[in-house]
Amino acid sequence: MLNRVNIIVILFLSFISSYAEDGYRLWLRYDLIKDQAKLNAYKKTVTGFIIDGNSSTLAIASKELDNGLTGLLGSRVPLVKSVRDASVIIARFPSPLLKDINLKTDTKAISEEGYVITTALLNKKNVIVIAAHTDVGLLYGSFHFLRLIQSFHDLNNIDIATSPKIKHRLLNHWDNLDRTVERGYAGFSIWDWHKLPDYIDPRYHDYARANASIGINGTVLTNVNANAQILTEAYLRKVAALADMFRPYGIKVYLTARFSAPVEIGNLKTADPLDPQVRTWWKNKIDEIYKYVPDFGGFVVKANSEGQPGPQNYKRNHADGANMLAEALEAHKGIVMWRAFVYDNEVPEDRVKQAYNEFKPLDGGFKSNVLVQVKNGPLDFQPREPFHPLFGALPKTPIMMEFQITQEYLGFATHLVYLAPLFKECLDSDTYTKGQGSTVAKVIDGSLENHSLTGIAGVANIGNDRNWTGHIFGQANWYAFGRLAWDHNLTSEAIADEWIRMTLTNDDQSVKKLTQMMIASREIVVQYMTPLGLHHIMGWSHHYGPGPWIKDKPRADWTSVYYHQAEANGIGFNRTTTGSNALEQYAQPVRNRFETLEQCPENFLLWFHHVSWDHKMKSGRSLWDELCHTYYKGADSVKWMQNVWETVRPNIDEERFSHVKTFLGIQHKEAEWWRNSCVLYFQSFSKKEIPKGLAKPEKPLHYYESLEFPFAPGIRPHW
Amino acid sequence: MLNRVNIIVILFLSFISSYAEDGYRLWLRYDLIKDQAKLNAYKKTVTGFIIDGNSSTLAIASKELDNGLTGLLGSRVPLVKSVRDASVIIARFPSPLLKDINLKTDTKAISEEGYVITTALLNKKNVIVIAAHTDVGLLYGSFHFLRLIQSFHDLNNIDIATSPKIKHRLLNHWDNLDRTVERGYAGFSIWDWHKLPDYIDPRYHDYARANASIGINGTVLTNVNANAQILTEAYLRKVAALADMFRPYGIKVYLTARFSAPVEIGNLKTADPLDPQVRTWWKNKIDEIYKYVPDFGGFVVKANSEGQPGPQNYKRNHADGANMLAEALEAHKGIVMWRAFVYDNEVPEDRVKQAYNEFKPLDGGFKSNVLVQVKNGPLDFQPREPFHPLFGALPKTPIMMEFQITQEYLGFATHLVYLAPLFKECLDSDTYTKGQGSTVAKVIDGSLENHSLTGIAGVANIGNDRNWTGHIFGQANWYAFGRLAWDHNLTSEAIADEWIRMTLTNDDQSVKKLTQMMIASREIVVQYMTPLGLHHIMGWSHHYGPGPWIKDKPRADWTSVYYHQAEANGIGFNRTTTGSNALEQYAQPVRNRFETLEQCPENFLLWFHHVSWDHKMKSGRSLWDELCHTYYKGADSVKWMQNVWETVRPNIDEERFSHVKTFLGIQHKEAEWWRNSCVLYFQSFSKKEIPKGLAKPEKPLHYYESLEFPFAPGIRPHW
Repeated sequence: MLNRVNIIVILFLSFISSYAEDGYRLWLRYDLIKDQAKLNAYKKTVTGFIIDGNSSTLAIASKELDNGLTGLLGSRVPLVKSVRDASVIIARFPSPLLKDINLKTDTKAISEEGYVITTALLNKKNVIVIAAHTDVGLLYGSFHFLRLIQSFHDLNNIDIATSPKIKHRLLNHWDNLDRTVERGYAGFSIWDWHKLPDYIDPRYHDYARANASIGINGTVLTNVNANAQILTEAYLRKVAALADMFRPYGIKVYLTARFSAPVEIGNLKTADPLDPQVRTWWKNKIDEIYKYVPDFGGFVVKANSEGQPGPQNYKRNHADGANMLAEALEAHKGIVMWRAFVYDNEVPEDRVKQAYNEFKPLDGGFKSNVLVQVKNGPLDFQPREPFHPLFGALPKTPIMMEFQITQEYLGFATHLVYLAPLFKECLDSDTYTKGQGSTVAKVIDGSLENHSLTGIAGVANIGNDRNWTGHIFGQANWYAFGRLAWDHNLTSEAIADEWIRMTLTNDDQSVKKLTQMMIASREIVVQYMTPLGLHHIMGWSHHYGPGPWIKDKPRADWTSVYYHQAEANGIGFNRTTTGSNALEQYAQPVRNRFETLEQCPENFLLWFHHVSWDHKMKSGRSLWDELCHTYYKGADSVKWMQNVWETVRPNIDEERFSHVKTFLGIQHKEAEWWRNSCVLYFQSFSKKEIPKGLAKPEKPLHYYESLEFPFAPGIRPHW
Repeated sequence: MLNRVNIIVILFLSFISSYAEDGYRLWLRYDLIKDQAKLNAYKKTVTGFIIDGNSSTLAIASKELDNGLTGLLGSRVPLVKSVRDASVIIARFPSPLLKDINLKTDTKAISEEGYVITTALLNKKNVIVIAAHTDVGLLYGSFHFLRLIQSFHDLNNIDIATSPKIKHRLLNHWDNLDRTVERGYAGFSIWDWHKLPDYIDPRYHDYARANASIGINGTVLTNVNANAQILTEAYLRKVAALADMFRPYGIKVYLTARFSAPVEIGNLKTADPLDPQVRTWWKNKIDEIYKYVPDFGGFVVKANSEGQPGPQNYKRNHADGANMLAEALEAHKGIVMWRAFVYDNEVPEDRVKQAYNEFKPLDGGFKSNVLVQVKNGPLDFQPREPFHPLFGALPKTPIMMEFQITQEYLGFATHLVYLAPLFKECLDSDTYTKGQGSTVAKVIDGSLENHSLTGIAGVANIGNDRNWTGHIFGQANWYAFGRLAWDHNLTSEAIADEWIRMTLTNDDQSVKKLTQMMIASREIVVQYMTPLGLHHIMGWSHHYGPGPWIKDKPRADWTSVYYHQAEANGIGFNRTTTGSNALEQYAQPVRNRFETLEQCPENFLLWFHHVSWDHKMKSGRSLWDELCHTYYKGADSVKWMQNVWETVRPNIDEERFSHVKTFLGIQHKEAEWWRNSCVLYFQSFSKKEIPKGLAKPEKPLHYYESLEFPFAPGIRPHW
């Protein structure tokens, strides 16, 4: 017998060492709980589960519970047939299974997708009840229940009732039909279009599981820089195969609409949204889509932005364009997510002001199934931006949030940057548009202006790399996006704690250290890339590495010098009343706070002000010295992260430990590259010494300027 | 105790079901042997192994034996310290461990990379000896030893002595620096250039293991349509990281040389191979490469072919170009593999004749470290081609073979086509250039003309798909290429048998059926794509699906009508003396055999002859009827393959069973698509009925002609 055990143990271990720890399993690992006391407690509490009803969604929940509980507890937790044998009851309100149970929660307070997980008394015995109005609610509850065990929660007195604060919680894939991914750093697109619809990659199921586990309920399959081919019959059949597969997971499929599709694939001469032929073409096309995908979610549209066609090509406005599509989608309950990311090099106005100027006058002009999708900041997903002035500025229009999970401007896939603090900083910002407490979160969850149509989108960092996101810690950003989309009141710390426990280790000390490291990581990347309000000083086109010297490009608003405005006397973009007056787009007292040099928080200083090199900072240092010190502090802090990682080594498997260690090494090298490049470049204006105590960069500025990366990932090779 | 076993069994099984059978492990699976009698026998024979010496190569061998034997036998087979405890002895000649052993083999007959595996008597006990001259020989022998167990060979009286017949056994990766793969159908390049040199993907090691297991000893990392950037310092550092990693596996790294690199990255005005500056530039560049990669293998060059620059741009010939590089490589023992795949639309000559015409006069003009790399056939990797007339035609020049493992013209990654019969058909062809028995194999193994410099290249079908090759059965082609590169005398059947046993099942009946199916698969694809000698009638540019109607393109030699010459009276390309006389390039009696309509084998009929639709075939049918019947037979045979696959279901895991089943479904659909398209298209010339008993195609010709695939995989988006 012992021999047999040994065989199996060895097999199992050799198996794990070869395959298990490549990151593919994300946070849904379900490995046997090592803490014997916890294990025993869970085994006592969780002995069997029952599910009332059958549907493909419930079959998924059942399989997940079976795999998950069996894995975590190390022995089969059966799906039982009688409620008497069940210690976990999964049922929709008002299931007969629930009739003898007194639920503490008012079921009316639970929304369609919400659920309760609660300890209840049944036949004088404690049971755990997972209840919801819908099967998808039960699936979400099942994942949450597994998470409780994965992260060592006490199951003895649970009382959870939760509903998503935002209705449409979507990933946006900037994936092209040739499988390149714009701003993708984790390999190539997971959508194998060529083999669809016949071949359903098993990976699609794991993608859906991961999303369902955090409540993501929609996926936009295609790049916002859209290709009309996706709307042809051949591709719609492929889309339908994915939609069929995702449906039981509660995930709807959306596409991006190329505004000029009527010309490109419809043989029309125009795409004018007020042209009757164009309107008919879109109506017919949308009706056709719904034949293939009866619950198609709708369109995201990038129009009149960075070369994309749009209604302005025909002297129409964004509302004309959005409403045309919305009208045809309305009959099918589809929505339009019209992006506000518009700016024009020809417009003689500070780029960060243009979206507001375009959309402010359109408020009230959109159909009721249109959301305007706004990036968190007014520029473009920088390491730090102030919140976008459109939040709160369009009270009659549902505004949805667009966050970027993929790290276009934050070190690609090799930098460990936990994004929840960035997301939260924006969500918690007070717009004051309806007085104190008018947070961005309240704008997008609809509570500020009483909108029932609400949405949030995250630009996915997912690719066909085995570990999905390139960096193991990139998984945390996918996870955090989903969790915040469900509940923006969660703290970054709480989300990090969950994720670490599920993904890496339940060792309390390690969890604490890693949480600290993750929370700090966002500020660290700001420090070594764009401290004190600097922005948009990265490499040309591919956005890899530093490029403060970028100038003389076809568009001024794609250069760095446009943004940092460094010169002999100082640095920074004056956006006060004496400058571009971008601040006029914010409500009071936000505007005043940023307007005055004294009140303006130093982390936004150079975003709003052009400041003398000698300006005295709160630290007592001059701006120049502070800038240098911050760059050096950022780079040094990556060393600190490397040290933190070393301390948790005993609690992390070798494969993932080594992966993260290697990537932290790259991050440190690149942090120093950023620091050296920026300090040397800005020094060419300030003409000041690098402060004492800071080591001089090892190479001269022209070396850093000479570096070229013709094959940096994430650029779309063709359309 | 029982409980603990159960826990582990369940864990192990749940693990397997989730992760094990995705094809990643290739033929190196090492799962526990299920046949109890075999298992017991092996456990008795293999109790411990000893390795004499230590090196990174031997460490790899040791780890492989440890993992492999432990996995196969289910209990640890230890690496022992004393030869007395060893039942397997791994040692280089003349190791002290071997001094008391009387080896049957003459060690001088074993080449540097060869090895023996033999049963021998030591201290009156039978032991197994794996012996070689080099550590790499021992690594090869170790893999072979594992293979014996994996495929259920009897270990009681082994007597294997083997050396590779060909010196340079290389994969050619047509991988671009942006990770697209020209003619790649298994995802994208496994080379993650951006993260190199810092990040070594664990996958690189598994790639190297797989190659070492079949004796592949070189890899050309980059596309023959080359980019000069690979020769810049930043990329050479990346190349060096890969070379360091591959070295212990006996694998050398090679690159492709862009002929115009001196202009593109060297700032010279010319790339004329006789220009002293150009020669100096290459010499310096090559010296630089060897600083990074001391055992760099050399260059593959595609010059003056399909738009690539070359010596002819400067009125020099291929020998001038090759010799310039060879001279600089010579000092470092590097080689040049100069491709003979050249043809020119401007040359008024049958495309298949042009390579011979170019290279024949250059025989004797190449330096001694130049190989001319010739594709198996004179056109371009078609489902069937006659052997290339250059084989045997350049007696003074070492000729190396270029096979295509990736299925550019054979259904991409979704068609099951076992390529060993295609490779063998070429290798076994008798060129008669030095009388009977002058086979292609003897040309490329050097024995015909006494060349010691020999080589064979396979254009890889490897990508970052989890299962490496897109189709599980694509792995068999990688495997077969390696095995034939080592020993071209192996039969297709024997290689299939090995691969099936290691990869899929050891069930004898299943092995037999699958071998039959694999062997038949090549003839089947010929039947449904290009029967009776047809060639080059696939889709435009992407080469996906049928395209016999392709005409009026910028180059005539890239159209289909150029090749099939169908018209009202007949079909086929007349390459006899009354036609292009391509036959003049073959020796007698090959030429005569193909020249006469009566003697010409029907499988090459339309390659060499333009034949009347009414021509009476050996079957008694007219050519038209035979053509139709062959197309229908091919498509129907895929149904037969589907049936064969169903019969082995009990012996295949669910995940891979389902994968192959889905792909066979796609193959069947596409076989019918080929059949319908070609029969309808050729009917538009023959004006004859589809023979009775054959179902009419469901759609009209114009439907098939209208299909477009703008994002078919495998096209290089940019350079």
